[in-house]
Amino acid sequence: MPRTAATESFKFNHTMIRIKDPKLSLPFYMDTLGMDLVSEQNMGDFTLYFLAYSHDGIASLPAEQKAKARFNREGILELTHNHGTESDPNFQGYASGNAEPGRGFGHIAITVSNIEEACARFESLGVPFKKRLTDGKMRHIAFILDPDGYWVEVVPQALSL
Amino acid sequence: MPRTAATESFKFNHTMIRIKDPKLSLPFYMDTLGMDLVSEQNMGDFTLYFLAYSHDGIASLPAEQKAKARFNREGILELTHNHGTESDPNFQGYASGNAEPGRGFGHIAITVSNIEEACARFESLGVPFKKRLTDGKMRHIAFILDPDGYWVEVVPQALSL
Repeated sequence: MPRTAATESFKFNHTMIRIKDPKLSLPFYMDTLGMDLVSEQNMGDFTLYFLAYSHDGIASLPAEQKAKARFNREGILELTHNHGTESDPNFQGYASGNAEPGRGFGHIAITVSNIEEACARFESLGVPFKKRLTDGKMRHIAFILDPDGYWVEVVPQALSL
Repeated sequence: MPRTAATESFKFNHTMIRIKDPKLSLPFYMDTLGMDLVSEQNMGDFTLYFLAYSHDGIASLPAEQKAKARFNREGILELTHNHGTESDPNFQGYASGNAEPGRGFGHIAITVSNIEEACARFESLGVPFKKRLTDGKMRHIAFILDPDGYWVEVVPQALSL
């Protein structure tokens, strides 16, 4: 149980990052990383995409139940697309959070049962790497880059630190 | 099940943000938001704090099992403290991701069973708000600020959109 009664119900529901172009980001998060699109909300000037691994079957629920389930679990990724950035020649892109100016946010992390297989598949799909398993001192983890340049850490589930 | 066999095991394990001072951030995430400290790793120049809601009992596990469980679930928050920032008068602070320069990352979100009670408690604890329930058009959600100025959205679990 969470450590205080007042926060007993609390869940770490989602993390939001902005994306330049859903035509690039949705295939990355859905096809390359295997998440399901749980909800898509057009808010006028922007669209919100809520993605999640459907280990609890959320992706197969009828729409109404899916909407209810979306705020009652953890591990949701929210992508915000401000309309027009994808075709604006003056759009500078989003900060990854890992360099100045704009250092703060670091990364999201995906854990996988077989990291060698996962990384070999990313290579075969042409995914850019920030750090391959063979780079640097930490040979058990990798970092790939999403279409906006956000870092995605890849970690074996069997890691025990 | 996740939508492709190659990604069947994948989990959205954690989100990492940098913090200036663990003496401020740990009480915020643990006491105010009710997360448990699952793991603390001193890496020399920096320390990593892994926090989570212990709905699965992870916080009560023996250390070795806790370490194993940490990469096999979702909803973990990783805080990175680069040693010295807390007392460096020249440290400029971290970017929230919501303003230039450094726009990209948006927020993390906590869902709660009773948002009025949760927000009243945050008020009583002196937590700064970015957006109260009564501000703006979206009267069902709030945003509070963590000690580094990162936005934390507070959303009712019963929300159905």
